[in-house]
Amino acid sequence: MRTHFCGLIDESLIGQTVTLCGWADVARDLGGLCFIDLRDHEGIVQVVAEPSDAEGNAAVVATAAKVGYEDCLRVTGSVRRRESVNPKIPTGQVEVVATAIEVLNKAEPLPFHHHENPGEDIRLKYRYLDLRSPEMQRRMRTRTKLVAALRRWLDARGFQDIETPILTKATPEGARDFLVPARMHSGEFYALPQSPQLFKQILMVAGFDRYYQIARCFRDEALRADRQLEFTQLDMEFAWVDEKTVQDTVEGMVRDVFREVAGVELDAFPRMTWAEAMRRYGSDKPDLRIALELVDVDALVKDSQFKVFTDAAGVDGMRVCALRIPGGAALSRKQIDEYAAHAAKYGAKGLAYAKLGEDGAVNSPVAKFFDEAAFAALLAHVGADKGDIVFFGAGAFNTVSDFMGAVRLKAGRDFKLVEDSWKPLWVTDFPMFEWDDEAQRFVALHHPFTAPAVDDVDELRANARTATSRGYDMVLNGNEIGGGSIRIHRPAMQSAVFELLGIGAEEQQAKFGFLLDALKYGAPPHGGIAFGIDRIAALMAGTESIRDVIAFPKTTTAQCLMTGAPSPIEDAQLAEVHVAVRAKDGA
Amino acid sequence: MRTHFCGLIDESLIGQTVTLCGWADVARDLGGLCFIDLRDHEGIVQVVAEPSDAEGNAAVVATAAKVGYEDCLRVTGSVRRRESVNPKIPTGQVEVVATAIEVLNKAEPLPFHHHENPGEDIRLKYRYLDLRSPEMQRRMRTRTKLVAALRRWLDARGFQDIETPILTKATPEGARDFLVPARMHSGEFYALPQSPQLFKQILMVAGFDRYYQIARCFRDEALRADRQLEFTQLDMEFAWVDEKTVQDTVEGMVRDVFREVAGVELDAFPRMTWAEAMRRYGSDKPDLRIALELVDVDALVKDSQFKVFTDAAGVDGMRVCALRIPGGAALSRKQIDEYAAHAAKYGAKGLAYAKLGEDGAVNSPVAKFFDEAAFAALLAHVGADKGDIVFFGAGAFNTVSDFMGAVRLKAGRDFKLVEDSWKPLWVTDFPMFEWDDEAQRFVALHHPFTAPAVDDVDELRANARTATSRGYDMVLNGNEIGGGSIRIHRPAMQSAVFELLGIGAEEQQAKFGFLLDALKYGAPPHGGIAFGIDRIAALMAGTESIRDVIAFPKTTTAQCLMTGAPSPIEDAQLAEVHVAVRAKDGA
Repeated sequence: MRTHFCGLIDESLIGQTVTLCGWADVARDLGGLCFIDLRDHEGIVQVVAEPSDAEGNAAVVATAAKVGYEDCLRVTGSVRRRESVNPKIPTGQVEVVATAIEVLNKAEPLPFHHHENPGEDIRLKYRYLDLRSPEMQRRMRTRTKLVAALRRWLDARGFQDIETPILTKATPEGARDFLVPARMHSGEFYALPQSPQLFKQILMVAGFDRYYQIARCFRDEALRADRQLEFTQLDMEFAWVDEKTVQDTVEGMVRDVFREVAGVELDAFPRMTWAEAMRRYGSDKPDLRIALELVDVDALVKDSQFKVFTDAAGVDGMRVCALRIPGGAALSRKQIDEYAAHAAKYGAKGLAYAKLGEDGAVNSPVAKFFDEAAFAALLAHVGADKGDIVFFGAGAFNTVSDFMGAVRLKAGRDFKLVEDSWKPLWVTDFPMFEWDDEAQRFVALHHPFTAPAVDDVDELRANARTATSRGYDMVLNGNEIGGGSIRIHRPAMQSAVFELLGIGAEEQQAKFGFLLDALKYGAPPHGGIAFGIDRIAALMAGTESIRDVIAFPKTTTAQCLMTGAPSPIEDAQLAEVHVAVRAKDGA
Repeated sequence: MRTHFCGLIDESLIGQTVTLCGWADVARDLGGLCFIDLRDHEGIVQVVAEPSDAEGNAAVVATAAKVGYEDCLRVTGSVRRRESVNPKIPTGQVEVVATAIEVLNKAEPLPFHHHENPGEDIRLKYRYLDLRSPEMQRRMRTRTKLVAALRRWLDARGFQDIETPILTKATPEGARDFLVPARMHSGEFYALPQSPQLFKQILMVAGFDRYYQIARCFRDEALRADRQLEFTQLDMEFAWVDEKTVQDTVEGMVRDVFREVAGVELDAFPRMTWAEAMRRYGSDKPDLRIALELVDVDALVKDSQFKVFTDAAGVDGMRVCALRIPGGAALSRKQIDEYAAHAAKYGAKGLAYAKLGEDGAVNSPVAKFFDEAAFAALLAHVGADKGDIVFFGAGAFNTVSDFMGAVRLKAGRDFKLVEDSWKPLWVTDFPMFEWDDEAQRFVALHHPFTAPAVDDVDELRANARTATSRGYDMVLNGNEIGGGSIRIHRPAMQSAVFELLGIGAEEQQAKFGFLLDALKYGAPPHGGIAFGIDRIAALMAGTESIRDVIAFPKTTTAQCLMTGAPSPIEDAQLAEVHVAVRAKDGA
């Protein structure tokens, strides 16, 4: 239907006749002289319909005069040099003088044009109009390039792309499952996979060597800005490996793919233990673009009169730390309250601070609990200087780390301290378990299939609270973009971990019997990782929201505004799959 | 953990020390001299543990003596030339003399070994053992290669890989949907997509030019040997095209990919209208490897006394046809009955025949309804010769075509008339609609989004019964491996087709409002196709069952024997998503 793409018409075609297909991005009729910006996926070129002696010219001009926004056109014409060059577009040197214009499909008046910036709801309802914008086209193309580059890299290295089921068995560990009633098995349900974790481990037991899959995963969780009901991960698993092989391999992959797709050269990734990341950055996914660090001050506050500090200083499982923000003394009382409110969201009961005025005067509600010299020593220890503010956090190690980490990120943004760069790292040596005070049991920090650092079952049982795992996360600019581990490959260790997590023998058999069986029959040592494709695509495309790199995303209320999913279903259809909608009271 | 792969040890490594990881495929202890066939994904190599003066040798031999089937081992040793060469395996010239053997994971006694050929149920329950067999490894690798080759081909030509949602809106057209209750929207449900059809059309409206996706699709249908609840298709769509562009492009792709993956050179594909395919082969997916053809004999039977023939001969919408099977006179009475029973499954009420004995004598229950000369003329017309049998079918065109087509396939198999070759073709010009007598309405032969051959709405309405569509199928060796069409891109035509299918204005809006809306705002002409990946992979791997090219397939009873999906779910979890299991009486 066409000879060229609109966006690729250039000076080399001057004098030639071309046929183009596209949308009327803009159409202007200057009294018998018509200009149409014709757009396809490659870009825009100017089409002119002007009076001439050529046969049929009147009809061409008449058709052009009636063209409206987003009409679908086929245009034939000759390329010529433009009188008034448009430097803003790559085709700006030339224009196409139309000799024929065919309206392939007329557009009705639009709910919005992609030139506008309407609200996200209307963009999602008319997603097909939204996606026409060059910005969205560029973002989606970045995603396509990312996935293609990853596949090419993996295919070239013998990784085998294997599909695992979407209709599978419910595993009540982890997040909430989506359920699918089974028509042929009344009262039974399939579940959509939260990840292909068990299947990829089984593939290693099944003799495949290196596996990958760009896999759709499903979690029925509350939606935040960066979450979707369904999401895509690059899922990988390696047989006969230790963590170094996995990490070195995928680090190379990420470096190569960032170079190819985003033109970004990443340095070798630093490695940091979970404990160090929490201590220095208050986060297990530190954003290293922000130079600010938490400083432990237990030794400098333990002799103060401030009970909040002294109750925590030097106590096992607790910490007292400080964060110095250069220039932070400029914060108003109200702004400091905002920081306290922000910290409170992450569990802070208060947020002590000290301001150092430009004159060196200290303004701090907690100074009175210290000898003057001791307080000066404290401030000196954290490197506080004139014009700075120092925030303090004290309490349980994880809570303090979390809220001080959140304060650090907010300060980084507020004070424009986020370096314009790419800062990846590996975080390793995660705790194997976290103690859940409420449930009075251990929960797995990664997942229950992660190998502990120790090989011995009795040693793990004896030191469960302090045991570390063979898990690792890849972090980029404060985002956990990949997470993985060496897995348990011996059935006795897997059973022991299940037990520590409060899953008894019977429940183990019912839920994970097939995994325990598989481990019995010669499972090789294996490990792997999964990368969040949506997030990596968003980072590469330079957008905050993963919705911008998903063609048809759901809203935070779990709806597709375009199709209207989810929707009510007739009872007869529900009867076929043996379920009924419950009455509102839950009966 | 290893320096080489087992299956790749060759004479170039003689004298070198290697470290290998793998499974003990076979282990034999010949009284202190032990042989282990060590297997990884690349193949098998023989490991020998033999007495020597080397330090630690006794321990190595003792370990080797205790190795059992499928133990996971790490072996270090030196490569040497084998005394008794094993020509059956690529590594058969060499063996590895072990200097260290580490048992990485001991295997318990196996439910079966992949050397055996157990029933499919036990293979599926212990799928990880089944997949270890070199045959299954080869099949799965063929599938991986197929998908990688398709992607590479498409990526190189600017097709954009775009993911579409798995949690989407129920569309009660077509097959039965799988439903997923929505937790955040009580009483509402998502559906799993039967195909990305509407999304890919919307992507064309959204300005993408050429799309593809290796997409998971879901149909809750009765399972046959070649169906799965979930299946994989290569889904493609092109903007600004007619059928020739689509067909030429994908024909080139299929040819290239068959060459690359299967080493098969396909000829240019013949084209055949649906009417011709039905007339000559009794099938819309004719297997051209079988040279037999149906022959229309209306004119030769219309003057007979056989009412079954005369009622159909020359009548609009009916046919009388014959199928000659060379050598078929050898069929016994019982075998002929089997043919009749086979035809009956496809709607035949009977199956008339005529045998020509080696002496030229005719044996036929219908001969008595004809003049001798007329019957001879009939047999001559179909080319019947001594030793042949001719089957006859008469009645409604589609029914007769179906059962005579089935007889043709059975005869092809029974008489070994299936050529060992690859025979692709295009089938085109499908009827737009089929009249459903029971429902007293039209049903779509492809799907309701397929464009009719006519552009004019009134013309379509006036000739709906005879209208053809712009659909096309790619057929290979009797399998429909791909199906597609040019789509409707104007809202008026789409509404008219919905109406003809009995979908009123209100229902159109409720179910397909978003599509009709999208067509209003400048939808380009577009078309596409979808290929069945499971079937193509099975064909390339030389297996009848698509379950052999799916890592974790379901049974014909829709179960995963390995994980036990589907399974009962606790009522509390169902309450969260607002559904309950219905009592058996359907209340």
